[in-house]
Amino acid sequence: MTMAPETGISGVDLAVRLLTAPTALARLTQAEARLVVGLMSPVYYASGACLIREGDASDTGFMALVVQGEVVVENIIVSRTTPITTAVLGPGCLVGEMGLIDEGPRSASCTAGTDVYCAVLTRDAFYSLIVKEPALAAKLLLGVSAIIAARARESLQKLKLYASLCQTMQWEVDEMQRQIARLTAS
Amino acid sequence: MTMAPETGISGVDLAVRLLTAPTALARLTQAEARLVVGLMSPVYYASGACLIREGDASDTGFMALVVQGEVVVENIIVSRTTPITTAVLGPGCLVGEMGLIDEGPRSASCTAGTDVYCAVLTRDAFYSLIVKEPALAAKLLLGVSAIIAARARESLQKLKLYASLCQTMQWEVDEMQRQIARLTAS
Repeated sequence: MTMAPETGISGVDLAVRLLTAPTALARLTQAEARLVVGLMSPVYYASGACLIREGDASDTGFMALVVQGEVVVENIIVSRTTPITTAVLGPGCLVGEMGLIDEGPRSASCTAGTDVYCAVLTRDAFYSLIVKEPALAAKLLLGVSAIIAARARESLQKLKLYASLCQTMQWEVDEMQRQIARLTAS
Repeated sequence: MTMAPETGISGVDLAVRLLTAPTALARLTQAEARLVVGLMSPVYYASGACLIREGDASDTGFMALVVQGEVVVENIIVSRTTPITTAVLGPGCLVGEMGLIDEGPRSASCTAGTDVYCAVLTRDAFYSLIVKEPALAAKLLLGVSAIIAARARESLQKLKLYASLCQTMQWEVDEMQRQIARLTAS
């Protein structure tokens, strides 16, 4: 993996560093991180390129560790055409882990917000890790599950906000209806 | 584990059957399921008893496989006091897996809708499985991650529904405001 020249550090070393950081998705040792990174492929996305498209049910066989740059995560929440930015993910963050795990359609779109270097782990590589290094795979899976749980918690919190907004608006609508009835009667 | 007498089958056998069913959370063999069930404790909840309380951040160290009966899952969505039933889970379903994985506060309340028999796996037992039987633990974790992903997808879908409802209501509010302005002016 060749990273942007200015870093003076190889992509593999960067990815290993990200996987062994105290805040990393799983608590991997150097040796474990090297093993995982060894199964990953370097992929470069030019700024504006699409990594993952929301709703895509065919290309779900990979997840990607952001090694350099920023990935914009977008969801088509209300409008069917205009997506809302739900997150901007930087180095050390993972994208595409849900589709990799459950083979379901992609739940969000991910676009390169800058030039982005990723380390991509395919489902096949992940499954081969489970067979060959089950203890390491279990450790990684614990981290990935926790990330998916964080996504679930985040959606639930947003859902609660929207539900409470809906209720407030319903009160407003009720009040306005009474006002219109009064105005029409007078 | 002693199940309701009418089943004529032991709780262990029932739990193993549930974990090896074609629709089970993980694709475990009989031997693997027996090993997992061996780490679980039988817990009986009388109808109406609380298994898990939403927001609880202290008692997060377990997940439970429903072996017999029905568990009602509720969320405090809008009102701070009245929860909404979001699911009713029967035999073979898992509750509490998110808190077990990420040690975060409980994301929903689970109440016994009938008399309920569960097989409970504590975090300690789960971690010991990772150490002693990593391949089996990884298999189980794949299943648990997929369940968490399903929860995340479900919340996202509901979030989209609420967001779109909010937008429709906003249009209604705007229209009514115009109507009130016309009525007030005339």
